[in-house]
Amino acid sequence: MDKPKPNCGVIGIWGIPEASTMAYLGLYALQHRGQEAAGIVSTDGKRLYRHARTGLVADVFRRRDILERLPGDMAMGHNRYSTTGGSSADNVQPLLVQDRTGPIALSHNGNLVDYWRLRRFLEEEGSLFQTSSDSELILQLVARSHGGTMSDRLMEALQMVHGAYSLVLMTKDQLIAARDPLGFRPLCIGKRDGGWVVASESCALDLLGAEYIRDVNPGEAVLMDKKGLQFLRFAKLRERRHCIFEFVYFSRPDSRVFGDNVDKTRRRLGHYLAKGHPVENVDMVISVPDSSNTAALGFSHETGIPFELALIRNHYVGRTFIEPEQRMRDFGVKIKFNPVAGVLKDKRIVVVEDSIVRGTTLKKLVSHIRNAGAIEVNVRVSSPPITSPCFYGMDFPTKDELMAAWHSVEEIREFIGADSLEYLTEEELLASVPHDNGQGYCTACFTGKYPVPIDVEDDTVKFD
Amino acid sequence: MDKPKPNCGVIGIWGIPEASTMAYLGLYALQHRGQEAAGIVSTDGKRLYRHARTGLVADVFRRRDILERLPGDMAMGHNRYSTTGGSSADNVQPLLVQDRTGPIALSHNGNLVDYWRLRRFLEEEGSLFQTSSDSELILQLVARSHGGTMSDRLMEALQMVHGAYSLVLMTKDQLIAARDPLGFRPLCIGKRDGGWVVASESCALDLLGAEYIRDVNPGEAVLMDKKGLQFLRFAKLRERRHCIFEFVYFSRPDSRVFGDNVDKTRRRLGHYLAKGHPVENVDMVISVPDSSNTAALGFSHETGIPFELALIRNHYVGRTFIEPEQRMRDFGVKIKFNPVAGVLKDKRIVVVEDSIVRGTTLKKLVSHIRNAGAIEVNVRVSSPPITSPCFYGMDFPTKDELMAAWHSVEEIREFIGADSLEYLTEEELLASVPHDNGQGYCTACFTGKYPVPIDVEDDTVKFD
Amino acid sequence: MDKPKPNCGVIGIWGIPEASTMAYLGLYALQHRGQEAAGIVSTDGKRLYRHARTGLVADVFRRRDILERLPGDMAMGHNRYSTTGGSSADNVQPLLVQDRTGPIALSHNGNLVDYWRLRRFLEEEGSLFQTSSDSELILQLVARSHGGTMSDRLMEALQMVHGAYSLVLMTKDQLIAARDPLGFRPLCIGKRDGGWVVASESCALDLLGAEYIRDVNPGEAVLMDKKGLQFLRFAKLRERRHCIFEFVYFSRPDSRVFGDNVDKTRRRLGHYLAKGHPVENVDMVISVPDSSNTAALGFSHETGIPFELALIRNHYVGRTFIEPEQRMRDFGVKIKFNPVAGVLKDKRIVVVEDSIVRGTTLKKLVSHIRNAGAIEVNVRVSSPPITSPCFYGMDFPTKDELMAAWHSVEEIREFIGADSLEYLTEEELLASVPHDNGQGYCTACFTGKYPVPIDVEDDTVKFD
Amino acid sequence: MDKPKPNCGVIGIWGIPEASTMAYLGLYALQHRGQEAAGIVSTDGKRLYRHARTGLVADVFRRRDILERLPGDMAMGHNRYSTTGGSSADNVQPLLVQDRTGPIALSHNGNLVDYWRLRRFLEEEGSLFQTSSDSELILQLVARSHGGTMSDRLMEALQMVHGAYSLVLMTKDQLIAARDPLGFRPLCIGKRDGGWVVASESCALDLLGAEYIRDVNPGEAVLMDKKGLQFLRFAKLRERRHCIFEFVYFSRPDSRVFGDNVDKTRRRLGHYLAKGHPVENVDMVISVPDSSNTAALGFSHETGIPFELALIRNHYVGRTFIEPEQRMRDFGVKIKFNPVAGVLKDKRIVVVEDSIVRGTTLKKLVSHIRNAGAIEVNVRVSSPPITSPCFYGMDFPTKDELMAAWHSVEEIREFIGADSLEYLTEEELLASVPHDNGQGYCTACFTGKYPVPIDVEDDTVKFD
Repeated sequence: MDKPKPNCGVIGIWGIPEASTMAYLGLYALQHRGQEAAGIVSTDGKRLYRHARTGLVADVFRRRDILERLPGDMAMGHNRYSTTGGSSADNVQPLLVQDRTGPIALSHNGNLVDYWRLRRFLEEEGSLFQTSSDSELILQLVARSHGGTMSDRLMEALQMVHGAYSLVLMTKDQLIAARDPLGFRPLCIGKRDGGWVVASESCALDLLGAEYIRDVNPGEAVLMDKKGLQFLRFAKLRERRHCIFEFVYFSRPDSRVFGDNVDKTRRRLGHYLAKGHPVENVDMVISVPDSSNTAALGFSHETGIPFELALIRNHYVGRTFIEPEQRMRDFGVKIKFNPVAGVLKDKRIVVVEDSIVRGTTLKKLVSHIRNAGAIEVNVRVSSPPITSPCFYGMDFPTKDELMAAWHSVEEIREFIGADSLEYLTEEELLASVPHDNGQGYCTACFTGKYPVPIDVEDDTVKFD
Repeated sequence: MDKPKPNCGVIGIWGIPEASTMAYLGLYALQHRGQEAAGIVSTDGKRLYRHARTGLVADVFRRRDILERLPGDMAMGHNRYSTTGGSSADNVQPLLVQDRTGPIALSHNGNLVDYWRLRRFLEEEGSLFQTSSDSELILQLVARSHGGTMSDRLMEALQMVHGAYSLVLMTKDQLIAARDPLGFRPLCIGKRDGGWVVASESCALDLLGAEYIRDVNPGEAVLMDKKGLQFLRFAKLRERRHCIFEFVYFSRPDSRVFGDNVDKTRRRLGHYLAKGHPVENVDMVISVPDSSNTAALGFSHETGIPFELALIRNHYVGRTFIEPEQRMRDFGVKIKFNPVAGVLKDKRIVVVEDSIVRGTTLKKLVSHIRNAGAIEVNVRVSSPPITSPCFYGMDFPTKDELMAAWHSVEEIREFIGADSLEYLTEEELLASVPHDNGQGYCTACFTGKYPVPIDVEDDTVKFD
Repeated sequence: MDKPKPNCGVIGIWGIPEASTMAYLGLYALQHRGQEAAGIVSTDGKRLYRHARTGLVADVFRRRDILERLPGDMAMGHNRYSTTGGSSADNVQPLLVQDRTGPIALSHNGNLVDYWRLRRFLEEEGSLFQTSSDSELILQLVARSHGGTMSDRLMEALQMVHGAYSLVLMTKDQLIAARDPLGFRPLCIGKRDGGWVVASESCALDLLGAEYIRDVNPGEAVLMDKKGLQFLRFAKLRERRHCIFEFVYFSRPDSRVFGDNVDKTRRRLGHYLAKGHPVENVDMVISVPDSSNTAALGFSHETGIPFELALIRNHYVGRTFIEPEQRMRDFGVKIKFNPVAGVLKDKRIVVVEDSIVRGTTLKKLVSHIRNAGAIEVNVRVSSPPITSPCFYGMDFPTKDELMAAWHSVEEIREFIGADSLEYLTEEELLASVPHDNGQGYCTACFTGKYPVPIDVEDDTVKFD
Repeated sequence: MDKPKPNCGVIGIWGIPEASTMAYLGLYALQHRGQEAAGIVSTDGKRLYRHARTGLVADVFRRRDILERLPGDMAMGHNRYSTTGGSSADNVQPLLVQDRTGPIALSHNGNLVDYWRLRRFLEEEGSLFQTSSDSELILQLVARSHGGTMSDRLMEALQMVHGAYSLVLMTKDQLIAARDPLGFRPLCIGKRDGGWVVASESCALDLLGAEYIRDVNPGEAVLMDKKGLQFLRFAKLRERRHCIFEFVYFSRPDSRVFGDNVDKTRRRLGHYLAKGHPVENVDMVISVPDSSNTAALGFSHETGIPFELALIRNHYVGRTFIEPEQRMRDFGVKIKFNPVAGVLKDKRIVVVEDSIVRGTTLKKLVSHIRNAGAIEVNVRVSSPPITSPCFYGMDFPTKDELMAAWHSVEEIREFIGADSLEYLTEEELLASVPHDNGQGYCTACFTGKYPVPIDVEDDTVKFD
């Protein structure tokens, strides 16, 4: 569909029996963060065991014996959407390599902005690369570090790279979680029965019955081993740059990210949208299920316009869908959403959508809603126009394809065929999100203001 | 989960190019009616081609070449939940057999009540059975009929059986759809570009771009071939006995079944539930997504109590989920639903559920809702207590396991741990559903009044 | 390759623990009799369990859990080459059906000559067919028999059919082996630890550690159940018509078939070939490994000409071999056989081959042998020219493609490019095979004399 | 079975259309050199394409589309038995990595003796290892070389390692074949239609229709690119140390290795064995098919004792064979070989075997031969007793398990239950193999004289 893709979800388990099954369940809860591949590495203190494949979590670990072959009470996992590195099987994480200290596994959510420059440098030094993933770069730097402990070496490596990363690294006896100095992507810590869980979102902790402790702080590494939990700082505290899109679309509404409840924040987007961009004389507010449900509810509560379920989503839609060769109009959207004719007939509608990338899906949806009998279709978007690509881990189309980079709101309205179209403004967006604990946000996709400079080479060099 | 299972979905395509792909799409839209197996038979007028397997539609037909090996502009398909016949691969439909006139394929939604008696009779006559499916019985009767045309033979066979059936039969040059005299299960006809589509629910017509014409009438066979459409009556018009549970739970809200819009009817259940079983001083109405969304919205609109999305459903939950061996409390429910803590905290709640079978899932859900901070949990059920098993195609637990067959409402309330529990009454249920076109309903699961007598042998004989 | 294909191998196990594993091992030993599909049905006295697929035995039963799901101490199996019925999965044996007495499984090696006539008759009577296999016909006849016991019913059915069959039938408490009145195909009985084994060839008994007892006699059914072994005669003793090709090519040399050792008989073919068709002034005798090894050794011993291994066979050649699209000369033969240049260089050779069907493979092989340096290539065939198709279970090309049906020996010699070519005569062939126990042979493929008349309809009707 | 395993087969194709299909065919011919995994890398000059999996060649490349996704007229392939590196999927070759010059692929047959020492050194320098294969070490050294061309860099790397290697390396525009200075393992070059083929054995050239040119010389690298063929020497000419076991057992008899015909040499082993270790008054010579066929023929020709085929080998035996849980005597051997009772009954036998490792298989075989009626069983082995493990690429059991390392010939005779047992002596072995072109041989497994010193660390360190 017409959405930026979250890049990845990571999970780490320390000191819990059946750790690989715990990791599996955690990946399940984080499935929305990456549906292209899944993998788990576990350890029993003697070896590291790995299973990783392309596919959904439930498919990759379909047979119980797979998890049984991942023993131990320490494990880590990864759900993946391709950002850098293409979608080949070689890039499936967690990565598992060996340096002089033994085997090391890494799961990484984010994107480094200086990957190519650093890779070229290491290649000149004789490093051999086996993937085109920026996560391997971190491991190559770790391998070259002369630090005394694994955490020293990891922190030394992280001081050389720039960009977004929330990562989990594992050896035979340690689990280390770390987050970039600006804290682009979320990562939190939970506690369960004397063990710990780290996860991209707290919904994974909920499923595992782990209690949320706090986020891994930006610029912090958290070391878990037999001595307990150690918090190590590897970068000075700076203004934070949380990805605001996690609140707009990526994270599950039942999660807590950046220390705050997603549902509450997303609902506030709906309230601000209603206050700033009201619609008169309409019969109902509808969402595009399920991603804009929460914002639509906020809009409904703010305005008193009834919230309706007018689009039925087919939840069985998989990734390998076979389209007929004969042309069927708007087929791609119809397979996913079917309007409830009885609800929409002769009605004036507000559709609340969370974001518009190319606009093609929304255009078809508006047309379907009209065909189902709606006489007026107003669109309200709970985030500002997307004008700039993300270099910190969201998988966007190129700038060429971003509708709002090249067209006015009026042009977009005309394109999608709505009677009216309004977006949340940047100010309203920033007013909606939490600020009471020193949070700061990256809004680059809406503003083009990139908090970490983009390396020109990395911007232009393409993987082949 | 704790629900009766719909038994099957059927689809038939006549005179549309790429008919097997059309059937595939139709099965996709009907996936909710059967998730255990899927199959398609097509014909190019020379042979019948079949592909059928256990699994979801998207898995069974994962590769395009499978559909390419099902050529022709006539096809039929089937989604299956086991009712009779166990879940073995041999019972996967459509069945494909050969009698003296050539190959015949059959897809059947429903359940015959006199299967064993007729099977024993035919076996004595020397019939050989290859499945334990009641659908094969219909084919054995067709094979023994001396009627002149296939439609004559089918109608002769149908006059010998009793029970519920909405079926599609196909030969090299004809497609025949038929429905039992009481019309237990739905079946409708659509039109597209000079071809026809028959389907269990109209949502399949919507996806295929076919226009809804009308239902196949109870006791009617619809014959499609080169001469056009022919409507043949094989049983006298009697009072109809539509399965009222199709409105309560089975059908998709965007479908039209028994000639009426499901969403509208299901919403009326919510209104009647609110009127007859109000709750005072509560903060919000929530549903158990997605099945009770529509009734909960009706409840909310009737009472003015705000509708909230407080449970997040993980849509990636598949059939092969691996549970940890260590005991995790209420794990089965947690993997599917996660409460949004921020929404429920310190709130008084009405949960609208569509039906209760064993009550075990609801018990866990109520507990989760309380753990998320709710201070009062009232449950309202948009159908009456289920006291009797279904013999017409729903896959229920045995009577022993039906909570309401053995316990009072107060006992159930105590078991699930709700502060209050009320059900829609039978009268309210019947008042909610459409009657303006001579409809009549089977309410046997709520009342024990079986419109077609159950054969004692069939009630007791078990498949081994 | 250019050989008639044996049609099938059957195995039955009575009263041996892990019977399905025993059946699996037996099929393994009989793999040469059918490489297209394999299946096993077992019973624990309560149910019949089945697993059958296309593929080699080791592939079909790759995972141990498959055999574990086939419990009980009674089992039967089948290796299949298609004869009638095409190669579709629906025809994979053992067949498993249900009649009024419960489940019945059947494995059948052979071919009925009056299949279509009987099938048409049964179809008129209302029988429904699910496969196009003549084995199902036997089951349909069993189902219609009014005999009191299963063995009575089977024998009644067998009295209605004509042709070749060595079969095993199984119910929940009995195993019945039977052989057609002329004894076309082999079937023997062995004993092991209080249990019994029936198998197409004795090499399966050897592997299972079972002791060979005797053959199932032509026109005899052997009933195995808790009361012990019962020998029942259902057809009068007539002159036997053992398939002489079992000695020429089909059976393994380490097997005993029709009561006699294959190796000894096949070796005698070599001796008679040498005596009747000698070659002067040659340096060595070579075989086409492995099928003509034994006859070539016989030839060598009779003449004193040294036996040499001059062709290396690649035993990894599987059924799914991918040929390059560019034309490579004689590729099909080269992938299977590579001549040893050092052995053949400047030598005069006799190649002993067991039979010639189309002659295309042999033509290429002669050419390769010459390219490897041989200066004279004489071919001797240890059976007469094949002039007529088989209707009793061998899978031949049609008569049109039988080289010797349309060409003289001199023409064939010229086609294959040999310096000389001679065949064993019919008289020599018959003199080579055992006769001391009343054996008689079918030589139809060499003589066109069919011991059971061929039904004209069956000869011409083609499956579609 | 009880044999040392050859480690690998390699193939390289330059300048031939459908190069990956050519590589596939070549691997097919070399399947006997490695049955655990297979892989191919091809290039169209733009990218390198790889497919590699565990399994036999025909299974790994079962579908035609796999080869179609390996385009270009340059390709390389690898059949693998594990030597170093365990059998995990990560070690499947060809390896494919990227250094500063782009992608590089490597296939390697052999074993480095100083792997661990060099690996530790590189790890200290910051190299990251992704496999535990010694082949990756060569690539790491290539990556660190500052040579100007790929061939310079490869040769620089090879000068740092010690041990056995016959390898093929490929970039987007070059194919380089190289062989260690002592020439342990074979590697030859062929020519076909303006393109070249390099292969472990010449049987692969035969299948591809390529003409044998000459071996890659020890200490030589052969560079193939658009400029033609270039022969580069990277080590001084020293005395050669061809693996004598290639003649005894590994290579196919129809191959030419080390410049000589295997069949001829292996036959000479049989002649020398007969001359030095005759047997009186026996009826026949038999082989253990197929590996000792050639030597047994030599023995027969030298002595005039008739050669017989008395053991039938089941060629369908695969790697995933399921044994029954109940104890079946000598089952492992019986599934593979069945004696022909008629041939052995009351006979005095000489069994020619090529080598004995543990002796367990031969013990069972001797017992089977006796059970089949043989009254005297004499064993003659066409190589000396194996007393020492191989460090140059053969996969042996440890020294502890080598029968002849700890027992006298008489003890071994008693263990296997033979009436007599004699081995070829080292002198006879060396007299049998070719010497007319400066060949020299490694006989370390028979003598413990290791031509390249074994690194103590590598001898003791175990992979974990």
